[in-house]
Amino acid sequence: MTHYSLAIHGGAGTLQRGVMSAEQEAAHRAALEEALEAGHQILKGGGSSVEAVVAAVVALENCPLFNAGRGSVFTHAGTHEMDAAIMEGHTGRAGAVAGVSRIKNPVVAAQRVMDRSTHVLLSGAGAEQFAADEGLALESPEYFYTDFRWQQLLAVRDTGRELLDHDGTALLREQDPDNASGLINGENKFGTVGAVALDAMGHLAAATSTGGLTNKRQGRIGDSPLIGCGTFADARVAVSTTGTGEAFIRAVAAHDVAARMKYGHATVDEAARAVVNEAIPQQRGTGGLIAVDVEGHVSMPFNTEGMYRGVVQSDGTRYIDIYR
Amino acid sequence: MTHYSLAIHGGAGTLQRGVMSAEQEAAHRAALEEALEAGHQILKGGGSSVEAVVAAVVALENCPLFNAGRGSVFTHAGTHEMDAAIMEGHTGRAGAVAGVSRIKNPVVAAQRVMDRSTHVLLSGAGAEQFAADEGLALESPEYFYTDFRWQQLLAVRDTGRELLDHDGTALLREQDPDNASGLINGENKFGTVGAVALDAMGHLAAATSTGGLTNKRQGRIGDSPLIGCGTFADARVAVSTTGTGEAFIRAVAAHDVAARMKYGHATVDEAARAVVNEAIPQQRGTGGLIAVDVEGHVSMPFNTEGMYRGVVQSDGTRYIDIYR
Repeated sequence: MTHYSLAIHGGAGTLQRGVMSAEQEAAHRAALEEALEAGHQILKGGGSSVEAVVAAVVALENCPLFNAGRGSVFTHAGTHEMDAAIMEGHTGRAGAVAGVSRIKNPVVAAQRVMDRSTHVLLSGAGAEQFAADEGLALESPEYFYTDFRWQQLLAVRDTGRELLDHDGTALLREQDPDNASGLINGENKFGTVGAVALDAMGHLAAATSTGGLTNKRQGRIGDSPLIGCGTFADARVAVSTTGTGEAFIRAVAAHDVAARMKYGHATVDEAARAVVNEAIPQQRGTGGLIAVDVEGHVSMPFNTEGMYRGVVQSDGTRYIDIYR
Repeated sequence: MTHYSLAIHGGAGTLQRGVMSAEQEAAHRAALEEALEAGHQILKGGGSSVEAVVAAVVALENCPLFNAGRGSVFTHAGTHEMDAAIMEGHTGRAGAVAGVSRIKNPVVAAQRVMDRSTHVLLSGAGAEQFAADEGLALESPEYFYTDFRWQQLLAVRDTGRELLDHDGTALLREQDPDNASGLINGENKFGTVGAVALDAMGHLAAATSTGGLTNKRQGRIGDSPLIGCGTFADARVAVSTTGTGEAFIRAVAAHDVAARMKYGHATVDEAARAVVNEAIPQQRGTGGLIAVDVEGHVSMPFNTEGMYRGVVQSDGTRYIDIYR
């Protein structure tokens, strides 16, 4: 019998139970379920953890509800600058793209960087040229556009603030407390997406994809595409993070989970909780992470009110959750 | 009496004793001495480790002998794309720039990102705009141009290879074994620069700056500007690396040194040697690193034939070295 484990996230933030309508919650759960099943089918069929995390993240990128791929937030300049990374644990191979605005599935571009270039991280126009040379699907700005994200930008553009998804929604709520529509009631609210997997060969992989911060300064790179910060995998554990990117960079958060296990002999849950509940708050950050170890144990701690997340395992475990 | 410690590097590679002329070796030693003294003066006067590493790296950036700032290598497109990072250990503050082509001193821009922005990593045009807004010195391409680097690019441009400094020189030597001039005899040969310091307050800092790889693809970001990979500092140790960047990224090399100390209770020398002699070769990489711990102990291992390096400490220790 095959033994496998997959966890996904769709961002963490100030999700409050009851603020999101039943319909909106159902839409998010369905989208998470679809992504989980995309990865599950691959693992069940004996596919690799790399293929599984890519399939799950592609599904989340293609869903406009999450801040990655289609539905990404807007920069201050009104553009999209998306980031993604992938890492294979048993080989240490890794690939990432940063600041891309036309690649339909940034995680697929990251996978190509890993598989077909001598580099780990390509950024901006060079990354897009690489993707074009590889024949990957490119899209126009209209494809990535969602009205909700545009309204989020307009609401904060002149404030000088750069906002995580949940902050942006909170600001909209402050400014327009009577707005009971989707804008503030949870529709499209959250962020960064990611997946971690253990496959039947015992190999681990992690992938992360994001549109970054609403109203962000041109050229800002967060933790998601940075190996060791937002994304990391080795022979013991695979990690994908979400939250205030700068804090996760300063904490080198994803690698810190692995290091606590490798050198400090922590379990995956001890390591993941220490990073989320100690290291990240020390850097004045909020967020969460998902991690799976080589035995298939999953840990998904977050220090926010909620994190979109889901798990499927070969022992029959299967769930989607949002709140604590 | 104040207690301080400073180490610098000017890149590691296939430096062979006897290949470099006495004059060229003297020029490199003088440049390293000048950078060491720039940082030394600050530490001796009670200045911070951040100020000291910036002063040392600025001196190395301004020297055309090293592949950082003036004298940076050329990309495939014939442009410069420079990267730099800085991190302060006791606070975890960090700043970095990637893919900048006009900023005279990228390490100063990294320091400004740390001090004056909410971000850690800014790239490309956005990073240059930030530097311009901050009033930092910008230069035209001519300032960064050196004939040696241009010849390096022409020699490899159509080979499809992207080269570390030392590889480029080796290739020139292959192609023109009778060339006994500066092109192959060590002039301008090496790479990435960096500094690590412990100041009299007991605070650590690390900084790294590079022009990257000759003939590199547009948008390639190496390890130098990536916190945890090429540059890292915490309350125990400060680290700056040099070598095949992709291997240092996959190994999350700088943070791995710190993690081996924090969780594995290794000494700085044990941790640094394990990374350079085990983790980096596992990722098929070569290079070295410099590290200083909170007691002022310095470790500077490399798995190449040489590394430009220097140390100055409050106990009177002072040396410059190149070979093993």
